[in-house]
Amino acid sequence: MIELALVGIGTGNPDHLTRQAMRTLAAADLVMIPRKGDDKADLAELRRTICAELLDDTKTQLAEFDLPVRDAATPDYRRRVDDWHDAIAAVWARTIAAHPGARRVALLVWGDPALYDSTLRIAARLQPAPRISVVPGITSIQALAAAHAIPLNEIGAPFVVTTGRRLRDEGWPAGVDTVVVMLDAGGAFEALDAQGVEIWWGAYVGMAEQITIAGPLAEVGPRILAARAEARARHGWVMDIYLLRRRGG
Amino acid sequence: MIELALVGIGTGNPDHLTRQAMRTLAAADLVMIPRKGDDKADLAELRRTICAELLDDTKTQLAEFDLPVRDAATPDYRRRVDDWHDAIAAVWARTIAAHPGARRVALLVWGDPALYDSTLRIAARLQPAPRISVVPGITSIQALAAAHAIPLNEIGAPFVVTTGRRLRDEGWPAGVDTVVVMLDAGGAFEALDAQGVEIWWGAYVGMAEQITIAGPLAEVGPRILAARAEARARHGWVMDIYLLRRRGG
Repeated sequence: MIELALVGIGTGNPDHLTRQAMRTLAAADLVMIPRKGDDKADLAELRRTICAELLDDTKTQLAEFDLPVRDAATPDYRRRVDDWHDAIAAVWARTIAAHPGARRVALLVWGDPALYDSTLRIAARLQPAPRISVVPGITSIQALAAAHAIPLNEIGAPFVVTTGRRLRDEGWPAGVDTVVVMLDAGGAFEALDAQGVEIWWGAYVGMAEQITIAGPLAEVGPRILAARAEARARHGWVMDIYLLRRRGG
Repeated sequence: MIELALVGIGTGNPDHLTRQAMRTLAAADLVMIPRKGDDKADLAELRRTICAELLDDTKTQLAEFDLPVRDAATPDYRRRVDDWHDAIAAVWARTIAAHPGARRVALLVWGDPALYDSTLRIAARLQPAPRISVVPGITSIQALAAAHAIPLNEIGAPFVVTTGRRLRDEGWPAGVDTVVVMLDAGGAFEALDAQGVEIWWGAYVGMAEQITIAGPLAEVGPRILAARAEARARHGWVMDIYLLRRRGG
């Protein structure tokens, strides 16, 4: 039976790696690295760097594979994602089959496999089913909070983790004064009433390229949008995240 | 100026330590370790183990200090906590002052300093203000998700992180189908309508003592309560966490 380890590697800082991640990778027979064409956002180079540093290549084989692309012709969003996950699982299966001696297989997952990541759902498609284990990794939520040296929650209070799309479509989530927003294609916070709201924003959090801006949303919101656009133009990609807090209602 | 590093160490597995945490500790002049009397839940022993393994004791001094206790005579909860944090900050200040050569000071924080932890709020009380940095660590939320090999969120969907007290007092949070519950003194989920709700529960997540139970809440809820009581009796303390998911409303 294949043992498939999904290893969270943090948000792009090789020092985010835990000892558990390092040990799991060192014990692997095969490490699979996805490539998204010329897209720098796949961070394949970071994965290669981590592997080159940690792995004894006489023991561990590396296999890069090209990620399938989503079929834009499939109109239904969920169906498009499902088909895409099927296609990725098929590539994994072929890659594993091409290394018949490999029993312990590892995949390096950006952040943590539990958070807005599809790796677990794709792994569940493999037949025969492998034994799946998860190694948690530092998430962008944590890298954001660390960069600003802020707590996520107020004392004893709840918080919501949501997406830019949800925030834009549904507004401020009910019942909480703190919201962490991920996967925002840009400026979903513009849909909010900025009165009394503070924002802690970061792009490339945890990485050498990290940029942070914090302050009253009404004041720094436009500055964030400008910084985001400028960073995207410069690096060719941008990944950002932010925490919003309003004065207790 | 004192540089105070708040170092997340994960949930009790020394292998949760990141390279960033290891490097920060190795570079420290002074590491402060809190003690809560005979309370095993302070995990001072774990902190000592980590320090003994990582630190060169010719370079880094260790200072244990007794945590002040909350004054049960103060009726107001927030006031009681504020007073307690003041008292802890005073002990930190005395401990640092007792090591005049120490410029880089580190505190080992269970989990991650950003999540239901007071260390940042206590650090903000120090005068003169130190330069504060945060090293993120694996949280019990991540250790729970890893133990069950589950994602926290459904695709594109939000989730709430809240406390047992809130869940008991306020019921299922509005607008989400996934809830992570921390700091539950035991069985807050009993206040919910269990119909259609699944639970993934864990105690001592990430540690050698880890226990996990998952299933329909109506079915496994009583089993969780029994396991929790039994574990608490055996170890003298228990720390647990769970994720609840209901079928999309």
